[in-house]
Amino acid sequence: MPFNSLDDFRAACTSLPAGNEAAATAALARQDTLTKPQGSLGRLEEIAAWLARWQGRPMPRLDKVQVVVFAGSHGVTAQGVSAFPAEVTHQMVANFAAGGAAINQLARQAGAALSVVPLEVERPTADFTQAPAMDEAAFLRAVSAGYAALAPDADLACFGEMGIGNTTAASAIAAALFGGEPAKWVGRGTGVDDAGLKRKAAAIEKGLARNQAALGDPLKTAAALGGRELAAIMGATLAARHRNVPVLLDGFVCTAAAAPLLKLNPTGLSHAMAAHVSAEAGHRALLAALGLKPLLDLGMRLGEGSGAALAINVVRSALACHAGMASFAEAGVSEG
Amino acid sequence: MPFNSLDDFRAACTSLPAGNEAAATAALARQDTLTKPQGSLGRLEEIAAWLARWQGRPMPRLDKVQVVVFAGSHGVTAQGVSAFPAEVTHQMVANFAAGGAAINQLARQAGAALSVVPLEVERPTADFTQAPAMDEAAFLRAVSAGYAALAPDADLACFGEMGIGNTTAASAIAAALFGGEPAKWVGRGTGVDDAGLKRKAAAIEKGLARNQAALGDPLKTAAALGGRELAAIMGATLAARHRNVPVLLDGFVCTAAAAPLLKLNPTGLSHAMAAHVSAEAGHRALLAALGLKPLLDLGMRLGEGSGAALAINVVRSALACHAGMASFAEAGVSEG
Repeated sequence: MPFNSLDDFRAACTSLPAGNEAAATAALARQDTLTKPQGSLGRLEEIAAWLARWQGRPMPRLDKVQVVVFAGSHGVTAQGVSAFPAEVTHQMVANFAAGGAAINQLARQAGAALSVVPLEVERPTADFTQAPAMDEAAFLRAVSAGYAALAPDADLACFGEMGIGNTTAASAIAAALFGGEPAKWVGRGTGVDDAGLKRKAAAIEKGLARNQAALGDPLKTAAALGGRELAAIMGATLAARHRNVPVLLDGFVCTAAAAPLLKLNPTGLSHAMAAHVSAEAGHRALLAALGLKPLLDLGMRLGEGSGAALAINVVRSALACHAGMASFAEAGVSEG
Repeated sequence: MPFNSLDDFRAACTSLPAGNEAAATAALARQDTLTKPQGSLGRLEEIAAWLARWQGRPMPRLDKVQVVVFAGSHGVTAQGVSAFPAEVTHQMVANFAAGGAAINQLARQAGAALSVVPLEVERPTADFTQAPAMDEAAFLRAVSAGYAALAPDADLACFGEMGIGNTTAASAIAAALFGGEPAKWVGRGTGVDDAGLKRKAAAIEKGLARNQAALGDPLKTAAALGGRELAAIMGATLAARHRNVPVLLDGFVCTAAAAPLLKLNPTGLSHAMAAHVSAEAGHRALLAALGLKPLLDLGMRLGEGSGAALAINVVRSALACHAGMASFAEAGVSEG
């Protein structure tokens, strides 16, 4: 296990490599020679420079794109916070294995390798209205599993989640890290009605009160209010930073899971791009709080890494232009 | 040539097949059985139903996706409306043929077949500040060429354009069809400065005054203020409607080129989806005027069909989910 104590993990979160500015600058300089008006590929140019900066080479690669879905079970489902029964987490893990879920189709379409990491799914975290969701050992097991899940040769990584109840955990983390009423951060998740929405807000209020002692510390907050799959996403996102792998952040749950990295280091998510803004109520506000501008806005709210997997296509297209276009000189085209 | 008179073409524009509502309804019903919360794929579900409606089958296909780039030359470049010299149109046609342009990379990445149709590029249209850009015969040749360019077996089509000066033509059409000051519709195109922006607005004002007699009629407007590649896009978009082929509209120029179809028949663009909103100033207002909601918003302003080609990936992903996901019953997942 890579992290034996919270202090170990905290040190890893605060000590981060910078991006390679020379590679990013070279990539942007190349963009300006290509046969198009300067800047006319918009965010595709930004993506090319971002890949260059975090892969550390002016001509990035996307030979291996990895999607990892982490799954975990949540004790807070006892509070009636989800439209689906808790056993769906386990059933969906089987559906991923059989190839029947949305993320299976989206990862294949994007040319990405999909793996699924169930995290003690048979053992739900504690109901955070009653006790911290995870103790330190459970939290460290989960972040370590996430850290270890990154493929050594990945060129780009997407992390997804499956866990009935986990939008409630994500909302609790967002409220703890960024303040505001619980109602600001709760949404319908898999589709709760108005009464379910109220139960979610009430559970979060109770959870924040119950875990007051943890709230000053982003890592203790993640342990007390989060879940195993959220902790794993934090660990995996950190691993990507340490190994020069750019990350596409998925939706609300993933963004909340990774948010403590930015609280621990202001550049903690600089290697990550927000793949999309989901229809889950708190996501837009959370991205704004993190200073992230999403690539896509398609009303999705499925989780599983689905928004990130979809955005892989945009990243591949950006690299295809960056790598494949002719320069003005090569093509004999007059410059403006 | 399919259209021998303006009346022939007008009749083809007004007499349009409806979509297949039964196929769309069946597609949406299928979506509701798939292993995800209902509606959670957002616009991907809408895309599946749109493909079904306009292909006329509940399980759509994307075996052949076609991208056609039409190129034309514009006499209005004499008014100093572009940051690039007019010969770039011809040079870029050569660049398309050599595979060096953005659209080459984007079409390949999206698995689409790219073809380029130069339309009398050596013969610019008239400067519309002095005379109608095209007479009726030239206009009919261009719309007919567009109509004929649609592949008989296309499952989805994207039309792009190349033509130095054509954002000025597009702005003039938008102003003529939807009103408002020229300044509302002009943007920087390939990158004109503030003085260039003023020249564009002045040229449009002059063009509208010079071609006043055409303005009551969307087709005469397109002939007087447009260009060959814009007319071809209108013809190709019409051909797609007649042959059950859904269309992804590209940016400002393509949208303005196709807009007369909606003026002639309120359902004239129902088979088209706006692939993206470009950074060209008038595009957002034009999409709003047409009631179209773009899929992507990535600050692109390149033309060539680039935004539409990028959106093909989203459409393919939507179909991959629609066709490949397991149902709740198949996967043994409990419903909410």
